[in-house]
Amino acid sequence: MPDDTGDARDHAGMVVLTSDECDELLASATVGRVAFVSDGDPVILPVNYRYHEGSIVFRTESGAKLDAAARRTPVAFEIDEWDPDARTGWSVLVKGVATAVEENDEAEELYGLGLLPWTHAREKRRWVRIRPEEISGRKVV
Amino acid sequence: MPDDTGDARDHAGMVVLTSDECDELLASATVGRVAFVSDGDPVILPVNYRYHEGSIVFRTESGAKLDAAARRTPVAFEIDEWDPDARTGWSVLVKGVATAVEENDEAEELYGLGLLPWTHAREKRRWVRIRPEEISGRKVV
Repeated sequence: MPDDTGDARDHAGMVVLTSDECDELLASATVGRVAFVSDGDPVILPVNYRYHEGSIVFRTESGAKLDAAARRTPVAFEIDEWDPDARTGWSVLVKGVATAVEENDEAEELYGLGLLPWTHAREKRRWVRIRPEEISGRKVV
Repeated sequence: MPDDTGDARDHAGMVVLTSDECDELLASATVGRVAFVSDGDPVILPVNYRYHEGSIVFRTESGAKLDAAARRTPVAFEIDEWDPDARTGWSVLVKGVATAVEENDEAEELYGLGLLPWTHAREKRRWVRIRPEEISGRKVV
């Protein structure tokens, strides 16, 4: 429901971000967190990512993150920023399905983004894409 | 497996943090993310928290976060820090069960921590505690 500043607010009184605002934040941030269910329990892992043609893409190697992607499981992806002094902040939540990107022309294009994975300890050759089914954002002003 | 610096590394080549290092990071950070399963899908929400007597505690109001807690569902809690210039960072993942703290002496004690919720738009009166069942951490050096 819009308040007297014209902002829509949620049940907790936070300002609801517009779709365009969520898109801009997703395009400007580079670190996010992916949550998925592994053996029945939720897990959160940080990733360096890019927002490419409306999808979240990140690089990984075989392991928990890619296994989840290969199963086309539902995942959540989140970015946020918090200023503890001003007590202002925002967060964007993406819900979608993760899929592994096969090594083909599409993967070549993704390499062109210059994205480096969270760890540079080993080269990570596989890409995972999250296609958003729902994007929502909130801010505290 | 320890490398020649004495650090244990995981399958991705990241340095595995010790239990004491994870505890110190959990005690020093103030913003984390909680993941839980809601209607079958994972969700991530940012929270301002304290690490109090070995548990993650945060304030919330009725809604998704508290509902999950009331059901004693398995949750994940994560903190991280990433330096894009140095390309170094760390993350700590806590797996556990969330429970609502009832309004009694214990809640009074938690109020004494001076913890403010993510949003100050409305006073949030309820507390949620995550008792860790598993804590793990990684860093990229």
